[in-house]
Amino acid sequence: MSILVVGSVALDSVETPFGKREEALGGSATYFSVAASFFDKVNLVATVGEDFPERYIALFKNRGIGIDGLVTAKGKTFRWKGKYDYDLNTAHTIYTHLNVFEHFKPVIPKHFKKSPLLFLANIDPDIQYSVLKQIRRPKLVVCDSMNYWIENKRKELERLLGKIDILLLNEAEARQFSGESNLMKAAQLIVSFGPKAVVIKKGEHGVIYFSKDSHFVAPAYLLESLYDPTGAGDTFAGGMVGFLSKSREINESSIRKSIIYGSILASFVVEDFSINRMLDITMKDIRARYEHFRKITKF
Amino acid sequence: MSILVVGSVALDSVETPFGKREEALGGSATYFSVAASFFDKVNLVATVGEDFPERYIALFKNRGIGIDGLVTAKGKTFRWKGKYDYDLNTAHTIYTHLNVFEHFKPVIPKHFKKSPLLFLANIDPDIQYSVLKQIRRPKLVVCDSMNYWIENKRKELERLLGKIDILLLNEAEARQFSGESNLMKAAQLIVSFGPKAVVIKKGEHGVIYFSKDSHFVAPAYLLESLYDPTGAGDTFAGGMVGFLSKSREINESSIRKSIIYGSILASFVVEDFSINRMLDITMKDIRARYEHFRKITKF
Repeated sequence: MSILVVGSVALDSVETPFGKREEALGGSATYFSVAASFFDKVNLVATVGEDFPERYIALFKNRGIGIDGLVTAKGKTFRWKGKYDYDLNTAHTIYTHLNVFEHFKPVIPKHFKKSPLLFLANIDPDIQYSVLKQIRRPKLVVCDSMNYWIENKRKELERLLGKIDILLLNEAEARQFSGESNLMKAAQLIVSFGPKAVVIKKGEHGVIYFSKDSHFVAPAYLLESLYDPTGAGDTFAGGMVGFLSKSREINESSIRKSIIYGSILASFVVEDFSINRMLDITMKDIRARYEHFRKITKF
Repeated sequence: MSILVVGSVALDSVETPFGKREEALGGSATYFSVAASFFDKVNLVATVGEDFPERYIALFKNRGIGIDGLVTAKGKTFRWKGKYDYDLNTAHTIYTHLNVFEHFKPVIPKHFKKSPLLFLANIDPDIQYSVLKQIRRPKLVVCDSMNYWIENKRKELERLLGKIDILLLNEAEARQFSGESNLMKAAQLIVSFGPKAVVIKKGEHGVIYFSKDSHFVAPAYLLESLYDPTGAGDTFAGGMVGFLSKSREINESSIRKSIIYGSILASFVVEDFSINRMLDITMKDIRARYEHFRKITKF
């Protein structure tokens, strides 16, 4: 199958207690695409400015990521600068320059309109909705969001929830959206808005998957070194949707495995800045860590 | 086999957003004993005052908990009062009246000196050490501690670590003891002090078990209702040591299962105040939740 992703491509400047990087390749659609590209064909819909480095375009191409939907607009590329303190849990934004991303109105190229899998990365829920209206209903729609949209575009987000299959939120966002501190109650409330399931990402504490019929809980892969958590959530999504794209069927069993693959991809990406760690590894490394994960969770 | 536990028996007054209880049965040895009594014979070494209610003595007896080592001393029973805010994560102590517990010098009755399993609940590491000196080396020594002893009796705690098999700590205590924020590094450092393994309890986020050779990670059982987290750690220990006492062998496989049983017992105890929830359930309920846990973690 093939995967369509709509989101951001950015230049990130990041500082953590372990070092810093200036204008490294970032953005939700970037992390997602690179992670998913281990499994299947990904087509990217995003926008960059005229200053976007040619070598990053080459990087997408080299990984087989389709860039027919990557539009170069007049102006500068989306830039974000953030800093993490010692605990690495919270990103402190130093600046966000939306630049060309401010006027991003994704147009889905004709040959992507029948994509069987769609990931709507974290952007304005109205824009996410507009993507769904341009295409044939995919077999699977996975969607991310964030605190800003929950607070400022609640109604638009609720409308979107009726049209998607799986919503990804982190722990705080799930509590914020539902007004419930208990995550099981929060998840129940979220699925009552329409999605078939919600995945609540708890970072170093693992993941909860909750559908109308069942739930699944998984710890995170234990890491000794964590350098930069930027992009972990989108990388998780990339591993998850990537694996599902290669699965014969999308059912409870393959979704559970896809969540573990998502966690494994995320466990790699935080071991270095930007997407760098993913450039070091092969499917063999991913499978080895997946098998190790199975070993350390077996009882 | 049989299990020896040395710790506290107390009268707890607890307030949570869901209600309050005055002078309910509490104390580390109480929670441990009641949980372990589902699996095997437990003998309790602790002290209470002359005011300790007869009905609580009857409760221990009714569950087959051996009270030959439960000494009634002149004075009042240990009392603790605490309050939990909405998130239920942190207990705010309103008072601690040690009373007879202040002069607790456990004397192990002769017929308990060959107990094959020992749980040293959270008390002064010097007292924990004195218990080990009175008895034949058990097959398994599991030990709990807390921030106060890490801060104020560091050397005594380190001496003790050379003599035990498994140390139980919560996440914050593991970080405090090791000076490492990364839990994998923290665990490595802790086992370098002598214990065969450390279990790091992360509450609603599950458990990490770390030995010299291997590690095991498990999420927590997901609960919809959490009323009172008091005693969850000691109940976890009771389920864990109780299961190990009934296991043919204490090895990696039985330890992993025991950790899940510990989590299951803890998931029950927090559903009501004091030990009340454990009085409602049978081994059948415990097994059913264990099987459900297996189901929701399988991938």
